[in-house]
Parts: sequence; structure tokens; C-alpha cells
Amino acid sequence: MTTSRRTFLRHGLGLAAAATPALFGGTPPSPAPASTATLPDGRPAVGLSKHDLPTPALVLDLDVFERNLAKMAAHAKAAGIALRPHAKTHKCVEVARRQIAAGALGVCVATIREAEALAAGGIRGLLITSEMVGPDKIRRLLRVTAQAPDTMSVVDDAGHAEQLSAAARSAGLTLNLLLDLDPGSRRTGIAPGEPAKALARTVARLPHLRLRGIHCYSGSSAHVVGFEARRVHSEKAMAPAIATWHDLRRDGLPLEILSGGSTGTYNIDPAFGAMTELQVGSYVFMDVDYRRIGGSRGPLYDDFGAALRVIATVISKTERQRATVDAGFKAFATDRKFGPELLEPTGAVFSWGGDEHGILDLKEASREVARGDRLEFIVPHCDPNVNLHDRLYCLRGEHVEAVWPVARGYG
Amino acid sequence: MTTSRRTFLRHGLGLAAAATPALFGGTPPSPAPASTATLPDGRPAVGLSKHDLPTPALVLDLDVFERNLAKMAAHAKAAGIALRPHAKTHKCVEVARRQIAAGALGVCVATIREAEALAAGGIRGLLITSEMVGPDKIRRLLRVTAQAPDTMSVVDDAGHAEQLSAAARSAGLTLNLLLDLDPGSRRTGIAPGEPAKALARTVARLPHLRLRGIHCYSGSSAHVVGFEARRVHSEKAMAPAIATWHDLRRDGLPLEILSGGSTGTYNIDPAFGAMTELQVGSYVFMDVDYRRIGGSRGPLYDDFGAALRVIATVISKTERQRATVDAGFKAFATDRKFGPELLEPTGAVFSWGGDEHGILDLKEASREVARGDRLEFIVPHCDPNVNLHDRLYCLRGEHVEAVWPVARGYG
Repeated sequence: MTTSRRTFLRHGLGLAAAATPALFGGTPPSPAPASTATLPDGRPAVGLSKHDLPTPALVLDLDVFERNLAKMAAHAKAAGIALRPHAKTHKCVEVARRQIAAGALGVCVATIREAEALAAGGIRGLLITSEMVGPDKIRRLLRVTAQAPDTMSVVDDAGHAEQLSAAARSAGLTLNLLLDLDPGSRRTGIAPGEPAKALARTVARLPHLRLRGIHCYSGSSAHVVGFEARRVHSEKAMAPAIATWHDLRRDGLPLEILSGGSTGTYNIDPAFGAMTELQVGSYVFMDVDYRRIGGSRGPLYDDFGAALRVIATVISKTERQRATVDAGFKAFATDRKFGPELLEPTGAVFSWGGDEHGILDLKEASREVARGDRLEFIVPHCDPNVNLHDRLYCLRGEHVEAVWPVARGYG
Repeated sequence: MTTSRRTFLRHGLGLAAAATPALFGGTPPSPAPASTATLPDGRPAVGLSKHDLPTPALVLDLDVFERNLAKMAAHAKAAGIALRPHAKTHKCVEVARRQIAAGALGVCVATIREAEALAAGGIRGLLITSEMVGPDKIRRLLRVTAQAPDTMSVVDDAGHAEQLSAAARSAGLTLNLLLDLDPGSRRTGIAPGEPAKALARTVARLPHLRLRGIHCYSGSSAHVVGFEARRVHSEKAMAPAIATWHDLRRDGLPLEILSGGSTGTYNIDPAFGAMTELQVGSYVFMDVDYRRIGGSRGPLYDDFGAALRVIATVISKTERQRATVDAGFKAFATDRKFGPELLEPTGAVFSWGGDEHGILDLKEASREVARGDRLEFIVPHCDPNVNLHDRLYCLRGEHVEAVWPVARGYG
């Protein structure tokens, strides 16, 4: 670690990148734009120690991240299933490039904005996992498809399919579609069985649409606590979609793709036999949420390492057993019941202190904490947490090796 | 409304702005940069109907916003107290300009990033309400102070004051400071009474520091439900700081400013007599959170109108009494126990559906909802909600009059 850091510091980003060729593949990573590679005071970020970054800072431990990438890639290869990782987790061209270089078919995205950002960055094999409804989204879907013709999106309604067909005809394009099937979450998706089969026939019949397969994401399975309970939940959730998949193929519909699964079920869903690809997302970064679901060997899910952190600074310390850091609702995701977890000292308990403040109860902490101390936290929920920051400061050991922009926000 | 909208559409932004001269004052609003004034498909946003905006869209009803601005300005004038509204709510140069044009002394900010963005936009009278701890923040505080010499920040620790003094001396600048006093929230701030007085004497003695007054923000008072309970809470929270203020002035310390208060206590705190300015924030936008605290006349706090909304699109409608919209954890603030409130139809109940989905239970809804419908929501908590979006689409009636960038994120 020390040697590779020195090597990097001596030779700069190009050589450090060349030291891990497998992850960079044929597409060399582009330098981050000046706006994200430069600190607010004008200094370049690359080469800085993490101890000098402005806080709160979203940082990525590249060693842990690369181990996560390699482990999932090896798992998928051994299990005979493809990967199309979900890029809503990272919204980052550089992460997507590395996922594809490690063998992924492409990436999933949740929004048209994410699709636009990744397509512009050269990423192909995009699957937009939300229905593109309304004139604005359909227009933008056509633009992305013109740029990246293999882009896919999803449909759960015949009227929507007709609108997409008409729009594709006007644009002289073909839109690739997956049927969105509801695994019981009642969020989006048509019911498996007869309703899904009728929709499949409609989509297959409509001009300028190409029916590629089925999308069925059981978000409620992903975070079931306990490996065996999770296995049972996912099997039950996916069974109707899998039966529909077999029926439709038996009927001669040209379905090639059955996409679903999550970081919680990556080692569960391949055993179902039918699924062709996993849309795992959080495994690259990890978070408190996933660590709590329990692994196949015990109560801590540690199949993947916590590569994503927020560094915060203690800005107030007026009591011995209490400290306030400069990270609150706007630096950490707040959609879970729990907050971030402090890496060190252990035993400190975080509570929310407002938009820009977090409070640490230090009564059980393993050491004293002083004003000015910089502390690292595992984030509560990685997807919305990344969305709060403009850039990922990528660390090799303690030093910044790269800065990757995050395409957050809406159009 | 219809006439002024037509006038705007005919004559463009310049004349529409001139129609409300009191709010624009001497500083004409600058046009939004191309990146935020242009839709993702390249069309200009100004002049568009709100029904054509990409969703989820953060929109500001300018008529309601201007009424909120005017009402708070008139209240402060009548109550004989100054305003330094908190810009962490909006992170927006254009909003700050209008607050100052309506009479505010300047604006508060929570982060150095907000201070930098507003100072670069020509805003003066900045008060940074968090301690600027660590070399990066101190360096940036000095840069902002060089640009905007009346910038103030806060201190709750003698060692920190010494660091600020040394840094200011090195830079050849004077830093303006307020003592940060703890109103009992135990978040930041030194205890009122003897600890505060000792710190005041230290700050007053240190070279290159100018002690301007006291900062005491009782966040826990702001959302106490019920006007009288809120009055009692705020009076109790502020009393020790007010006593310290009187003591220090009696001792001859040159305190000019006693800053605190919130949208919840704007009509409570002036009666305490000592406070010189209110740092009200949410009143410009409003949210579900504040509407729930109860007003002086009844259970709904409606002193200010809900000017801020998110427009979302129904993207899935596979059940008659349930609909899914394209707005979830990344479009709405999630730091409160409750979600957004749908304006219309009434009776619909929102629940979270993940990063990009919200679920509407329509069993009690006042009308049917169809796929493709566009629905407007009052946001749960305005400050972190604005932070999720890059721009405010400003509506005059149903049409976009301007697009204002939001300086969200961190350095």
C-alpha cells in the first residue's frame, strides 16, 4: 500500500491507473473535469491526503471498491449469470466503465437523466428500470436511443406501449422494451400471468418496438433480514415472473432477458435457473442498511466491503462526552430509520443535529475526540447518499487518486 | 394573474421583473446561466408551461413567494427588528437578492460553500452560523472575507478563536465574530453566563478579531406545536442568552447584534426586547413540517403560503385505487417522519416507494388519477428538499418566468 501510494505520488494518475489494468479494460478513464478535480480554493484534489479534503467529503476507498467489483464479477461468472449493475447507486460514468470492464453487459439506470449522463460518457447496454411516461421522457428516451441504440426501458401498460410505438415510428427508431412485472411490491409492474402475457403480445405486435424480455425487481426481498428468510422471500416473489417467462418463451415470444435481483439476493437468485442477469447495485459501495441484513454465515452482511465513506470534522466540543460534526441531513441519506456508523472511535452513537450537524454521544467511545478531529462514517443508505454530493474523492490508501463527478439531480 | 402572465409572455423576463420593482431593488436579477435555463433537450425553460416541465421538477410559485417576502418584511418593520434570513433554506443568489431588496441586512448561511456562492453573486451581510473549524474552512473564510469584508462567523471555543486570530493576522484581515451560545439544544454553542462571558473577553482581546455580538439559534423551539407552547419554549431557551447579552453590554463589550429566531418564532421573539435580528428561513418557501406546528389562530400554521412544490408524473397505474409517481427519496426530503402532501386530488395518501418512486393510496381521493397525470406536492421539509435539486423553476401562474440555480452540495 505504502509503495503503491508512493509510486502514484511520483508518477501521477496515468501510471497508477495502469497498475490495475483489469479494471480499466479497453476504455481508459477520462480525467475528471476541472470543476470536480479542483478544490474550492483552486488547489488540485489529486495527490492530496484525505486529511486535507474539505468536509463533509464523500470518499471511495479504491482498494475496497476494486475488491467488491472483482468479487461480484467472479461470483456471476461462476454462477453462470450476467451482470447489469444498477447505476442509480453511483450515477457515475467512471464506476460504470469499471463495472463493464469487469464483465458487465451494461448498467441499469433509474432515470432518464442518468441514462443521458452515462450514454454521453460512452456507456452502452443501458436498461432504464422505470417507465418513461410523458412527452418529455419519451422524447429524451428517443434521443438516448439514437445515441445508444441498444438502450432498453420498461413498460407495464398497453396504452403506454402504443405511445412508445407511435413516438418511435415518428423518430424512425426502434425502442427496446422489457415487460415490467410486479413481484408483489405493488410499486410498478403488471401482474404476472395472463395480464403480463396479454401485454407481451401487444408489445410484440406493435411496430417500432422490440420486446427483449422481462424486468422484475423485488425491492422488498433485498433487505429481508437473514439469509434463509431472504431466500424464501425472493423465491416466492420471483416465482410468478419466472413462470410467465417460461410460458411466453414456450409460446414463441423472443424473450432473451430476465432481469432482477439485488445485492441482497445476488447469491440467491441464480439458483432459480431462469434469470439471465442481476441488477446488483449497492455491492460496489455498501452501507449500514445492507450490513444489517445478515449474511450467509452470520448476522453481519460483509460479503462486500464498506468502500464508501463520509469524512466529517468535529466543529464543536463543549462537553467531554459529546461532539458535533459538520455533517447532517444534507451530507447523509435520511431515508432509513438509522443514521451513519462511525468507523473509529468505536462505541460512539450518532444522532441527527439538523441540515449540517451530526451529534456524537461519546459516553461509550473507545477514545477521546477533540475539536478539529476528522472522523469517517459508513453511510446509512448508499444510493441517496451519493446523490447528496457532487463528486467522489477516490482514495488509494490515504491519498486522492482521482475525483469522479456524480450526475445527480434532475433535468 | 392572467394579464400579467400574458404581459410576461409578450415582453419576456425583463419587463415582468420591472413589474415588481420593490422586490428587485437596486440590483437587477441576473439571467440564470445557460446550464440551468435550458431543458435537457435544449429547449429554453423560460416561457414554458409548468405542464411541460421535466419531472420531478422543483417549482416556486412567484406570487406566493413574493407575498411571503413582503409579509415578513412588513412584520419585521412593524416589530422594530431586523431580518437576516437564513439562506440554507434556498442556497440561491436570486432569492437572497430579493430578501435584501425587501429590507434584509444580509443573509445567514450554514456552510462555507453557501457563503462562497452568495458572496460571488454579490450578496453582502453574510453570517455563517456554523463554526468554521479546520484549515480548509478557515482558509476559505478568509477568502470570502477578503471579498466581502462584513462577513461574520461564529465561535464557541477559545482555542478556535485563537486559531482564527492567528490566521486573520497572517492574511492581514479582520474576522467578524459572534459568540455562539447554546440555547439548551446541546448542538453547538458555549453555555450562556460565565463561560460565554469569559469567551467574549478572550475574543475581544485577540488581535484581528472583531466581536460583533451573539448568535443563539434555538432550533428546538422552531417546531414546537402550538403557538403558546412555542412562545414559552422560545422564551425559556433565549432568556439565558439575553441575560448574557445585557451583562456583556453592561461590562462595556461592543456587542451590536443578537441574532436568532426562526419562521416558527418570528412573531414571538421580537417581544423579548433584546434580539436585534431574526434569521427566519423557511417562510419564503414553507413546507409540511411548518404547516403542522399550529399558528396563532388555529391548528394550521398558514402565516406564509406554500410557495415551493414538486411536480411529479404518474408513471404506473395498474390498480384503480393506487398510483405510482416518479418522485421518491431523491426528489423529496426524507428527514421527517412524514412525506410530501399532494395538493390535488385531496384525500390521497403518499408513501415512499424508493429512490425514484412515490406511492399514492387513492381510496379516499377526491377524483380518479390516470397514468401521465402531473401532480403537485408540498414538500416535507424545504431546506433539505431544495438541496436535492439543481434549479428552481419559477412560475408566474402556470408559466416559467425564470430558472434560478441552487448552490447545493459541498466543496
